[in-house]
Amino acid sequence: MADSNSKQDLIVGVDLGGTKILAGVFTPQLKRLQTAKLSTKAVRGFEEVVERIARCIQDAVDEADFSLKQVKAIGIGAPGAVDPSSGEVVFAPNLEWSKAPLKKALEKRLEIPVFVENDCNLCALGVHEIELHGKPRHMVGIFLGTGIGAGLILDGHLYSGFNRTAGEIGHMVLQVGGPKCGCGNKGCFEALASRTAIFRNLQEAVKAGEKTSILELLGPGQSLADLKSGDLRKAIRKGDKLVEKIVEDAAEYTGVAVANVLNLLNPEVIVLGGGVIDALKDEMMSIIVETARDYAMPGTDKGIEIVASELGDEAGIHGGAVLARQRLKSASSN
Amino acid sequence: MADSNSKQDLIVGVDLGGTKILAGVFTPQLKRLQTAKLSTKAVRGFEEVVERIARCIQDAVDEADFSLKQVKAIGIGAPGAVDPSSGEVVFAPNLEWSKAPLKKALEKRLEIPVFVENDCNLCALGVHEIELHGKPRHMVGIFLGTGIGAGLILDGHLYSGFNRTAGEIGHMVLQVGGPKCGCGNKGCFEALASRTAIFRNLQEAVKAGEKTSILELLGPGQSLADLKSGDLRKAIRKGDKLVEKIVEDAAEYTGVAVANVLNLLNPEVIVLGGGVIDALKDEMMSIIVETARDYAMPGTDKGIEIVASELGDEAGIHGGAVLARQRLKSASSN
Repeated sequence: MADSNSKQDLIVGVDLGGTKILAGVFTPQLKRLQTAKLSTKAVRGFEEVVERIARCIQDAVDEADFSLKQVKAIGIGAPGAVDPSSGEVVFAPNLEWSKAPLKKALEKRLEIPVFVENDCNLCALGVHEIELHGKPRHMVGIFLGTGIGAGLILDGHLYSGFNRTAGEIGHMVLQVGGPKCGCGNKGCFEALASRTAIFRNLQEAVKAGEKTSILELLGPGQSLADLKSGDLRKAIRKGDKLVEKIVEDAAEYTGVAVANVLNLLNPEVIVLGGGVIDALKDEMMSIIVETARDYAMPGTDKGIEIVASELGDEAGIHGGAVLARQRLKSASSN
Repeated sequence: MADSNSKQDLIVGVDLGGTKILAGVFTPQLKRLQTAKLSTKAVRGFEEVVERIARCIQDAVDEADFSLKQVKAIGIGAPGAVDPSSGEVVFAPNLEWSKAPLKKALEKRLEIPVFVENDCNLCALGVHEIELHGKPRHMVGIFLGTGIGAGLILDGHLYSGFNRTAGEIGHMVLQVGGPKCGCGNKGCFEALASRTAIFRNLQEAVKAGEKTSILELLGPGQSLADLKSGDLRKAIRKGDKLVEKIVEDAAEYTGVAVANVLNLLNPEVIVLGGGVIDALKDEMMSIIVETARDYAMPGTDKGIEIVASELGDEAGIHGGAVLARQRLKSASSN
């Protein structure tokens, strides 16, 4: 550890996902200094995942030549329903967690204050505070990955509703009787435009005998399910019409979902993010914006921005740092 | 005018609709004293409608044995996009108004402070303050009539978004590619479950040769379009299976829309109101609630109430009185 660094206070933001853990080290002014990544290994159970989160944080801090003792607070986003007051992950299907005491376990392990939120809420908070400098009074962040979720900033603050589950936009029905969703219902946004939906549609088209060059990207023993959103982009840029059509359909459904949000909540900014948008920004955004404005009631979208986030997969760690700083401040002012 | 009444301060709430004007006289404690009703006669133009609103208010005040001089403020809900700060009705398709200076014209005519809001916002405000005693922190009111709209109370206050058009739930798409809506798009909630949609479906079924007893309710020279929501109830109670099926379908779509709101906003209470719900409460509410809970993500609807408003078509005038009282208070405290 460099001597000149030893007095620097630090804040850590963590994005806990179903497949990977990303940790970021920040200054109290929210300048990002370093990140580290580890796979989640959710199958090994809660205790082991907590250990891996702790190790990922240590890796990031160490890599930046700091010591864990300098970390004043940790903000962490978990993929599921979270009780921010107790720091419990109430329900996280991707991790197979139910009533998991994440705050308690991590604070015991690291002896640093930990604050837990829903991952999409944290992504929205990161985009709002860091990317948009806290300016929009009302902002909705919609994040498309394996699943789809949203975070709502209303009247300048994170809005989470009565049971703290607001933002479940992935299960907004856009097509009654449409394709089956993982939740058991039909026609949810997530069943029409998530990475899962896109690959399911691709798989079905291949089965039906349609041609695609994307199969050439498969390694030995790999199936379509092993491909990533970036592979879709590669195929489209090589001129794959099937992949292009399927991604365009997903973008149109996303545009309809954006219009539904615009009509209902009329936020100043709607930000799109997540792995699917990161990889396919150029292919999807213009279709999303055009469709959304087409479905918005006349006059309602005046002056409203619909944009892709620049933070990419770092939105979550930025949001974690913002949350940790907010909570530290409110604790010190009490 | 009775002498004992002459010192009583009054507040007036007005619900301006496409077909009728309803005015209510209230005490400052929001006790409703009297109402009056006039047809809108929108075809006669803005000046004439303003004159009719003034006359309707005078009728209500006079009927209650009071004088117009006792009215300290008027709150009025208009069916369209409203700028509450200027009191201008920006756009109201049912009245064929665009940039109509309602506040200015009515204040000039009556010499009483006038406050204007969107009609669904006022209905939500009335339900929240009067029927639910201001208790729920987050409440969404969904109103089904000729069209469908919503009013949002978030964090205890009316939420209207960036362009003050929030709550356009009638144009939330529930069925991409579904039936055509008055707005030009397809598959909107309003095109699936409004009074207009129900009668369109009925008309199409009759054309296709399906049997219904509802035609017996038609007077000489009347068409299905002349019937009211109450006629649907009469037909169902007489055992009309076609009408029952069509109303059930509308209730199911309404349940899906309620679930979308529940998943996205997670409010403590979702209240249903408007002419369709008033007339068909017993036929629709259990289907709406069951469908909504079915489509809500597990755990998100815990403790959340989905209820029909008891205020019926008086929600708007109550909301108008609440608004007028709020604005008077904030004016006197400045």
